[in-house]
Amino acid sequence: MSIELGQPGDYHVHLRDGDMMNLVTPTIPTGGVSVCYVMPNLNPPIVTPKHALAYKAELQALSPTTTFLMSMYLSPSITPEMVFEAAKSGVSGIKCYPAGVTTNSEHGVSSYEAFYPVFSAMEEAGLVLNLHGECPCTAANADYITVLNAEEEFLPTLKDLHSRFPKLRIILEHCTTAAAVQAVRECGPTVVGTITAHHLYLIVDNWGGNALHFCKPVAKWPHDRRALIDAATSGDAKFFLGTDSAPHPLKNKRKAMGAAAGVFTQSHAIPYVAQVFEAEGKLDTLKAFVTDNGRKFYNWNQELSQSNKQVRLIRKANSIPASFGEGDEAVIPFKAGESLNWSIEWY
Amino acid sequence: MSIELGQPGDYHVHLRDGDMMNLVTPTIPTGGVSVCYVMPNLNPPIVTPKHALAYKAELQALSPTTTFLMSMYLSPSITPEMVFEAAKSGVSGIKCYPAGVTTNSEHGVSSYEAFYPVFSAMEEAGLVLNLHGECPCTAANADYITVLNAEEEFLPTLKDLHSRFPKLRIILEHCTTAAAVQAVRECGPTVVGTITAHHLYLIVDNWGGNALHFCKPVAKWPHDRRALIDAATSGDAKFFLGTDSAPHPLKNKRKAMGAAAGVFTQSHAIPYVAQVFEAEGKLDTLKAFVTDNGRKFYNWNQELSQSNKQVRLIRKANSIPASFGEGDEAVIPFKAGESLNWSIEWY
Repeated sequence: MSIELGQPGDYHVHLRDGDMMNLVTPTIPTGGVSVCYVMPNLNPPIVTPKHALAYKAELQALSPTTTFLMSMYLSPSITPEMVFEAAKSGVSGIKCYPAGVTTNSEHGVSSYEAFYPVFSAMEEAGLVLNLHGECPCTAANADYITVLNAEEEFLPTLKDLHSRFPKLRIILEHCTTAAAVQAVRECGPTVVGTITAHHLYLIVDNWGGNALHFCKPVAKWPHDRRALIDAATSGDAKFFLGTDSAPHPLKNKRKAMGAAAGVFTQSHAIPYVAQVFEAEGKLDTLKAFVTDNGRKFYNWNQELSQSNKQVRLIRKANSIPASFGEGDEAVIPFKAGESLNWSIEWY
Repeated sequence: MSIELGQPGDYHVHLRDGDMMNLVTPTIPTGGVSVCYVMPNLNPPIVTPKHALAYKAELQALSPTTTFLMSMYLSPSITPEMVFEAAKSGVSGIKCYPAGVTTNSEHGVSSYEAFYPVFSAMEEAGLVLNLHGECPCTAANADYITVLNAEEEFLPTLKDLHSRFPKLRIILEHCTTAAAVQAVRECGPTVVGTITAHHLYLIVDNWGGNALHFCKPVAKWPHDRRALIDAATSGDAKFFLGTDSAPHPLKNKRKAMGAAAGVFTQSHAIPYVAQVFEAEGKLDTLKAFVTDNGRKFYNWNQELSQSNKQVRLIRKANSIPASFGEGDEAVIPFKAGESLNWSIEWY
């Protein structure tokens, strides 16, 4: 049994830099992904088109057949003029991190109003706004905001931005709650949501004491996971894959305090997802979720592809290795040592 | 400034066995605790009065001035006859672990009905029933029960047991939710709750990626923490200290998957609590919470004490060490490296 998937996309990936970039970038094709939307949260973050393009060249050298869509990190240094310049240079979007909610987000946003001129320019230039949709916990709201409701509490901000900039294409990245799915559905067609592979599997019980399952936003309740699976398998063009694959060296996961947040799924991205769709009896909507919906939203054409290669899923055991790399620097993939039902074939 | 506390009690402690027992038992007096109610979840668990008394002798040798109250582990091997024998031998209570919810609970209880004859004998013999109040997650309820609602979902079982055995003294151990506090208040005077030191500090945000703050039951929402602080500082005789201090070697905390659950607070038990009461402006109710309420519930008289020594809190900086023991076997105390406002003086 096999399934033709065309050129699947992963619209939220962390490829890091240096040794980690060298380790994980070559696993993109292994995971069945043809198009990657690359996150800009390096240290320092990517805030200029020049930096984005230089980074793209590095990635391209490591995975020549992958199509890399680049982003910049929303920061006070970005002007409307830079937005137009970015669009001209081929940058696809700008990622907005609320200050302090995830890896390298200390340069992030505390208030959105200052960025309205930038959003307006993005709307005109056709750049996508990628929102990390969590309300940051501050001294003022610490008696109410937690990792469990930070996403739901952000949704009014999503709706407010959408109503102010109705033509701005907005992605609520890595939706983790039924409330987020509902909010995305309630907005117009310019607002969509990405869903990761691991949030189709995990709930709150899975990350306590298990740093490898700890990510931001955290996995939530069983009914939230159900809503994510239903949205992903629905075929609805508003939802598509963005794995938020986030590699960290084992030394930063194996910590009694302050273990890094992030799940590494790049190496088996499409097979992880296919496994869930198969269990749901929804393999017929897999291509919509992993290939078609994202491509349409990003207005990405196959002619812009780095390669003509297509992906076919074969129903054949696919073992997930214990690690990529070795020792303290190793990256442990999600479900390390387990076996998935689907393997990747490029043709 | 100083506060006379008499002989404070900690009515829920894990002292382990072997090297770990040798390491942590001597820290009981350092933490300002005179009376300890000792948990029976050794491996194998304590299910006979003989084992309980042999364990007590080991502990007594390590901390000669501490009064140890002993418990047994509720298991199918415990008969009503053994309950009466246990009471005669000086065992104070029986701890009930639902199967599979915490450290060494694989011998625990799946259904309570089979134990009604034992509960009836305990009621008659005056033994305390210590409940780990969490509804275990099973295949049947996996779409609903999580670490977040497992305690609340257990509360109907608490009320049911209380109505069947109204004279049985029941402790809902380590309450972590506003709902648990409310349920304890709604029951008659034979039902009380213990509250740990660390649940006066922690919420759900604190344990993701921080194995040292990961325990069962997990810390919950800010409003739950508020309810615990309010109950503890209220002076209400239904609530008293049971730290659930649970040492684990660092090697079992520093794991990327399967880090052990438990927070070690034995060494600074009373100062941790005093710090919170001071911040609340409630130092006047501290003695009720740490000394009087527990002693009354356990019908424990100072004449039965191992020692006449009393505890005085002095307002003087008390540094928490980075660890007890060294290397992989070290135990890291809660708030390691921080300083508390209160020090212990025995007189």
